[in-house]
Amino acid sequence: MLYNVVPSAKEEAVPNGVFHRRNRVTLAQEDSETPPEEEGAKPEAGHRWVRSFHDYAGESREVLGGKGYGLAEMTSLGLPIPEGFTITTQACLAYFRGEKQAPEDLWSEVELAIRALEARRGQRLGDPESPLLVSVRSGAAVSMPGMMDTVLNLGINRGVAEGIARRSGNPAFAYDLYLRFIQMYGEVVMGVESSHFSGVRDEWLAHSGAASTSQLDFESLEAIISEYQGVVFDATGREVPEDPEVQLRGAVLSVFDSWYSARAIDYRNHYGISHDMGTAVSVVAMVYGNMDYRSGTGVCFTRNPATGERTLYGEYLANAQGEELVSGASTPSDISELSREMPEVYSQIVDCAQLLEKRFGDAQDIEFTVESGKLYLLQTRAAQRSPRAAVRMAVEMTDEGLISREQALKRVNPDQVYNLLVPRLDQSAAEEARVEGRLVAVGLGASPGGATGRLTFNADEAQRLANEGARVVLARPETSPEDVHGMLAAVGIVTSRGGTTSHAAVVARGLGKPCVTGAETLTVNPERGYIMSDGVVVTEGEDVSIDGATGEIFRGEITTLQPSISSEKHMVELLSWADDAKRLGVWANADYPRDVRAALEFGAEGIGLCRTEHMFFEPERLDMVRTMILAAHDCADSPEGECDRDFHASLAVLEGYQTADFEAIFRVLEGRPAVIRLLDPPLHEFLPSFVDILEDVVELRAAGGPVETLAAKTALLTHLEELREVNPMLGLRGCRLGLKFPAIYEMQTRAIIAAACNVSSEGMAVHPEIMVPLVSHGNEMKLLRKNLEATINAYFDETGRSVEYKIGTMIELPRAALTADEIAETAQFFSFGTNDLTQTTYGYSRDDAEGKFLMKYLERGILPEDPFQELDRSGVGRLIEIATRLGRKTDANIILGICGEHGGDPSSIEFCHKTGLDYVSCSPYRVPVARLAAAQAALG
Amino acid sequence: MLYNVVPSAKEEAVPNGVFHRRNRVTLAQEDSETPPEEEGAKPEAGHRWVRSFHDYAGESREVLGGKGYGLAEMTSLGLPIPEGFTITTQACLAYFRGEKQAPEDLWSEVELAIRALEARRGQRLGDPESPLLVSVRSGAAVSMPGMMDTVLNLGINRGVAEGIARRSGNPAFAYDLYLRFIQMYGEVVMGVESSHFSGVRDEWLAHSGAASTSQLDFESLEAIISEYQGVVFDATGREVPEDPEVQLRGAVLSVFDSWYSARAIDYRNHYGISHDMGTAVSVVAMVYGNMDYRSGTGVCFTRNPATGERTLYGEYLANAQGEELVSGASTPSDISELSREMPEVYSQIVDCAQLLEKRFGDAQDIEFTVESGKLYLLQTRAAQRSPRAAVRMAVEMTDEGLISREQALKRVNPDQVYNLLVPRLDQSAAEEARVEGRLVAVGLGASPGGATGRLTFNADEAQRLANEGARVVLARPETSPEDVHGMLAAVGIVTSRGGTTSHAAVVARGLGKPCVTGAETLTVNPERGYIMSDGVVVTEGEDVSIDGATGEIFRGEITTLQPSISSEKHMVELLSWADDAKRLGVWANADYPRDVRAALEFGAEGIGLCRTEHMFFEPERLDMVRTMILAAHDCADSPEGECDRDFHASLAVLEGYQTADFEAIFRVLEGRPAVIRLLDPPLHEFLPSFVDILEDVVELRAAGGPVETLAAKTALLTHLEELREVNPMLGLRGCRLGLKFPAIYEMQTRAIIAAACNVSSEGMAVHPEIMVPLVSHGNEMKLLRKNLEATINAYFDETGRSVEYKIGTMIELPRAALTADEIAETAQFFSFGTNDLTQTTYGYSRDDAEGKFLMKYLERGILPEDPFQELDRSGVGRLIEIATRLGRKTDANIILGICGEHGGDPSSIEFCHKTGLDYVSCSPYRVPVARLAAAQAALG
Repeated sequence: MLYNVVPSAKEEAVPNGVFHRRNRVTLAQEDSETPPEEEGAKPEAGHRWVRSFHDYAGESREVLGGKGYGLAEMTSLGLPIPEGFTITTQACLAYFRGEKQAPEDLWSEVELAIRALEARRGQRLGDPESPLLVSVRSGAAVSMPGMMDTVLNLGINRGVAEGIARRSGNPAFAYDLYLRFIQMYGEVVMGVESSHFSGVRDEWLAHSGAASTSQLDFESLEAIISEYQGVVFDATGREVPEDPEVQLRGAVLSVFDSWYSARAIDYRNHYGISHDMGTAVSVVAMVYGNMDYRSGTGVCFTRNPATGERTLYGEYLANAQGEELVSGASTPSDISELSREMPEVYSQIVDCAQLLEKRFGDAQDIEFTVESGKLYLLQTRAAQRSPRAAVRMAVEMTDEGLISREQALKRVNPDQVYNLLVPRLDQSAAEEARVEGRLVAVGLGASPGGATGRLTFNADEAQRLANEGARVVLARPETSPEDVHGMLAAVGIVTSRGGTTSHAAVVARGLGKPCVTGAETLTVNPERGYIMSDGVVVTEGEDVSIDGATGEIFRGEITTLQPSISSEKHMVELLSWADDAKRLGVWANADYPRDVRAALEFGAEGIGLCRTEHMFFEPERLDMVRTMILAAHDCADSPEGECDRDFHASLAVLEGYQTADFEAIFRVLEGRPAVIRLLDPPLHEFLPSFVDILEDVVELRAAGGPVETLAAKTALLTHLEELREVNPMLGLRGCRLGLKFPAIYEMQTRAIIAAACNVSSEGMAVHPEIMVPLVSHGNEMKLLRKNLEATINAYFDETGRSVEYKIGTMIELPRAALTADEIAETAQFFSFGTNDLTQTTYGYSRDDAEGKFLMKYLERGILPEDPFQELDRSGVGRLIEIATRLGRKTDANIILGICGEHGGDPSSIEFCHKTGLDYVSCSPYRVPVARLAAAQAALG
Repeated sequence: MLYNVVPSAKEEAVPNGVFHRRNRVTLAQEDSETPPEEEGAKPEAGHRWVRSFHDYAGESREVLGGKGYGLAEMTSLGLPIPEGFTITTQACLAYFRGEKQAPEDLWSEVELAIRALEARRGQRLGDPESPLLVSVRSGAAVSMPGMMDTVLNLGINRGVAEGIARRSGNPAFAYDLYLRFIQMYGEVVMGVESSHFSGVRDEWLAHSGAASTSQLDFESLEAIISEYQGVVFDATGREVPEDPEVQLRGAVLSVFDSWYSARAIDYRNHYGISHDMGTAVSVVAMVYGNMDYRSGTGVCFTRNPATGERTLYGEYLANAQGEELVSGASTPSDISELSREMPEVYSQIVDCAQLLEKRFGDAQDIEFTVESGKLYLLQTRAAQRSPRAAVRMAVEMTDEGLISREQALKRVNPDQVYNLLVPRLDQSAAEEARVEGRLVAVGLGASPGGATGRLTFNADEAQRLANEGARVVLARPETSPEDVHGMLAAVGIVTSRGGTTSHAAVVARGLGKPCVTGAETLTVNPERGYIMSDGVVVTEGEDVSIDGATGEIFRGEITTLQPSISSEKHMVELLSWADDAKRLGVWANADYPRDVRAALEFGAEGIGLCRTEHMFFEPERLDMVRTMILAAHDCADSPEGECDRDFHASLAVLEGYQTADFEAIFRVLEGRPAVIRLLDPPLHEFLPSFVDILEDVVELRAAGGPVETLAAKTALLTHLEELREVNPMLGLRGCRLGLKFPAIYEMQTRAIIAAACNVSSEGMAVHPEIMVPLVSHGNEMKLLRKNLEATINAYFDETGRSVEYKIGTMIELPRAALTADEIAETAQFFSFGTNDLTQTTYGYSRDDAEGKFLMKYLERGILPEDPFQELDRSGVGRLIEIATRLGRKTDANIILGICGEHGGDPSSIEFCHKTGLDYVSCSPYRVPVARLAAAQAALG
């Protein structure tokens, strides 16, 4: 039986997951895995476009494509592979340059190569007595699984099929081969719709009760072939060529053309792969794993791709073709079985595996076929691997001396480290749940990890249940800062609206908690206490489970697996190498002592952003904050006294809270620096929503509700109306608040300094750095620095104590970046707030853009990346470069960091390294990611 | 009688008005008026700090101060002035450098100068028989009227007073002089509160029934002097020095110190005057206009300061002191009277006037005193003048050969041109109204000009009344785009909220209509139809008058004076010179044919911004626009067809409207270019307000209103909720709309091109330039250019017609500026939208910032200028420079313009010139301003 073992459907699977888009595949990266080129044979004279596997002149992966390169390399290692040759990517590029004319000499070179192949195989293309059949396969330098075309069994025609039937004594098999070739050639080369063939075939199968054409008899196959030929002629006015040379030319050009197929273009756009590389075409003699009982087909990994353990791992299916292995129609056995069935073949595979690992310096994924006891390797490539396996392989291969530490650090994708650290759903349990129909909806995977818990709709309720020891999943239509305490209490978050940069998503990633957002079919109804999708209802109190990577929401419990960094010894080791290699400091954004503790555990060297306002949202403080805000209105712009008593009274209470908070943080930090940002958000964020109160008032008025309630609500409404802004993002917030209500910043500054003095007096070092947000003009910073220093000096004078401190600013508005020289005159450090800087540089409001147009922009390729995830180097990055240059011009030693979301994104970290920043600051769970990314940036 | 004619209270008045802040006084400008220095005498040896008037060695205004320079120049011309000398600004600066120690040799030099003065006058300081009295006067290089100190009658003491009494035979006069000196010295030099003296004096006056101390008898004056001396001693523990040398030193240092008085610092900050110049001190012998009947005092202008006419203009008061002239206690006669009373003095004044005009090349404001038939000039300086006079003087002085055209162009402040072109209130009628108590409130002068009309509260009503021929003033709490048709119909606009860059202000200035905003005490109640301020109520339908420069709102009618450019022949001439001198093109922002016509009349060379959406707000179209928007929701992102029928139907109707609009505009333009911007604002701006509909729905629900109404409103509310944005400024607008709803931009493009073809087929040239708003990424522009060109080519193919056109973009987001090289690949022109660019660069929302913090920022000096009025060169300007460089790198011939508010601001125009833009575009009424400012920029 003659089957090819590597059908196109079995190309490596595209890994899914929210973070995948960031992992740009670049040729340079793959090349670094290429062993040094050997001095050696130059290609045969006149071979400009074609390289045979055994005489490839050390050509690169770029020229030969991944498949051709692997086959050539294996040939050069003396490993058993089928004969064949590769038409280079240069031929493909020449074809496109020549407006789809095959370059001069291409066909004559291909003919020479075919003749050589025939000579080696003792077979001839189109010879019914000893036919050479080949596969014609695409292979770009960068793997693009399933994106481009392949034609198998090429060389067959009626005469050849008859010959095979005659010689094999199995006409059905021969005609099945022929039939498959007609369909594949018709589709790929001649452009016939696949459905035209499947229509015919399915009718025959239904009629005969067979599962596949290989089970049909010779007569039926003859009849289908004839119908297939009719299908091709009807659709194209032409027939499938009988001449193998013509077949070959058609197939080669079709593979070339498939480089610019719509799906290939989309794929490259999506993964950021260049369109300029072209594809190579490998022409490979076919071998057959279903020849007899000493034949078979298999796949093996040189190390366990799930755990990284160094053992041969894979499957083998005896007397079978590759398609069967993939389709799951038969159950393959573990590859270790082969050691009993064909020990010599097994040990040959083990030897090959070792040799290939050594050759490529990485774990390999190898496809092979055994034909009558003879082993053929059909493909080798770097093995896909789980995050855990990636880390373990990298560390162990270094220990084995296979690769250097530098290579190990480059080998692991930083996002894989993140995935390793979050709890995840037990995948077998999840699969079971899918089978049982418990999948309720699929939204956007907004923050990876798995969680299972009681469904809750209210932040206070979530907190209450969590305090009682329950695990809860919080579901909201969308979240706001008022929900944060509930998000802190929950193990997972679900929203029906918003994208992967919505409030829910950003906060969840910051907390390292799984989150699913924007589940389109999902309704979240907090009032009635249910979620619903496609008619399926889950009510409050029921268990749900979510997968924040896939976006899946399940009914019922699913076991979660809980990792811990200390148990990840390979990661701990890898990250210690990263720390040696990196130049950038890695700090963390953390608002609470527990976050600070987590950050330090993950290796943070300081706190780059402590958002004091998050402390304001704690429920027991929120009332006090509201009293303060409503009273503050009368105190605007009055630097001292004369001000509403409630205002100062509530500030005094808040000062007590904040002092205690900061003390706790300084104690955890043990002398590491803490950048504490003064109040930033618009005040109305702390108040009930204008629309809600408006509704209340109108209702009360219409219904004639109680007079006092109406009066109170109306008064509140008036206040809210005064605070309301058309564009709050660009309104009264940040240092504008600090200048309008000086007492607020003074209170916060006193709390920070008092806390620092208290902890310092216990003998522990403290390094408070006070950060002023939203500066757009040097004068704002100048005035506030003066005010805050006056407050601090007054405190020092009163108490007779003192402590070292710094006062600096966020650079989060374009003007701040453009005038950084002036701002650096009074700011002792800069921290780039790239979230806001991206908003103003692009003129995008995160709150609005995502739902309204940003996702579409990404889909349509108008934006290559989401600038809120990956720092936009041409715009925002340009401003950072300008600010860095200007800031250092004024103060050569000014400390520069970044504290936006981008501080945890590998590509953005690379930019920060190149730009010469001093540190990046990110959420605690991304600290390990940042350490590795910083090391990779330093290694270049 | 001995009085000095130039009391400090009579220094030139500070001109008020909304545009004044822009007119930075710079020394360089004043210096350019200085005639070339003469080669001549060097100062006497050892005169390092002091220059006598007749031996000033050609020292500059910078060294001598304005007053000292004028006196010295007049001396050198041989004009009659009192003797004296000047202590230079360098002495003042040395004093401050030396930590308030008078520089070495200062006093010895002053003593020498006094001795020389005594010798010339035949009088001696402190000599009772022949006393020299002097005034000690401040005088900075730049005039700072009333800001610094002066001491008169210095040199008097008890002995001298007795001597004067004896010799003049008028002891009361002598003691009055002495009394005044004690008070002035006590206040200015010794820091005694003025109220301490006035308390004493007022009691005496009340007791005696006299109006001033000069009417008291000798004994009373003696008594008051004694009480004054007590006041000084009680307050300071010291006595007013009797020694004239001591008096002099004290006065000189006090004048120095007054350079850094709080009010002087504030004044310089306000007018942008450098703090580094210091003041000079002039010591001048006193002369007396009330010596006898052949004495007197007067002020004259060399040309009429109101009309500019070339005639001597001024007032004279015989036998009087300067204070009387100022106080209005006596009525002065016209200066022409003098030609009868003292013809030789009059003709001497005429000769002096001519000489001084020639010397300074400008109209002069001259103060003089006649002492017993002898003329003394006391001061000369450039005359303040009305806008009309400024223009006429500049043109006529050029025609007379007094100055060059270049000087004439520099002489007129561009904002004066603007004031000349808007209607204004008849000032005598306005004064009458003030006296009658008809002034209702004073707000911010947001757009200059005067208007009188019926008070109206509703835009539709305003339009209806205007159509009936009524003149209406529209009053609103604040305005929104929905009010624009009412603003168009009104002759003036009043709002109770918002500042000088609020929507109302910006639109009014664009329309050249008077506007008063943010009248704090004013309540505007459209529902009940009244405005109210301090209890005064004006109801709907009553006449009101407003002055958009002063911010005054009057009850009742006040005559307005209507200018026209063609009647302003001097201005027409001046602007024609400006056109010859300028390099920048001056285009206009205009949305309607009538605006285009006005713009051309004012000299616009093209239309730089035609906002198509303003056409959408016309009432008869708004319904259609709303239907389109509500239907559009279902059509988002579907490039063709499959879309709601209502959407396309309403677009088709709008296309008809727009085509007609554009045709009309092209016809007026007669081949000049027109930059037409595609739809920009967020769609919800065209819809009723979310809050209003929410109130309706809640009310209907609570009250159980009609089911269909409730259903319709609820549906509308749902739509509005979907369209609602947290930060609409940064949301779905501009080209984001064009990409989401391609049919809208296609409709507009077709309308533009069809209109162009229609007009072109009539034989008239057309130059449509289609402008895409809010681009932040090159890909947006690339895609839209492709789409729009496809639409245009389809139109050309269908109709067989064609026309030249361009497609370009606004640069109004920081990222667009930073990536202008990429955008220039597909944009054929750039227009800097500096309104939005300022918002995003600063992170200020205009709608919010002004009321919430911007005004306070300006008051507190945190911002030196309102960046929405004067282009912020360090931030926004930097981006414009970057974009200019990058844009030209890609396309050396790309046309660059500016179309924000700044296009009509002189300082911003100077920046545009320096940066190398091709044109500025501003509202039609500011086109003459821009022409002049562009000329001034070119002249440097």
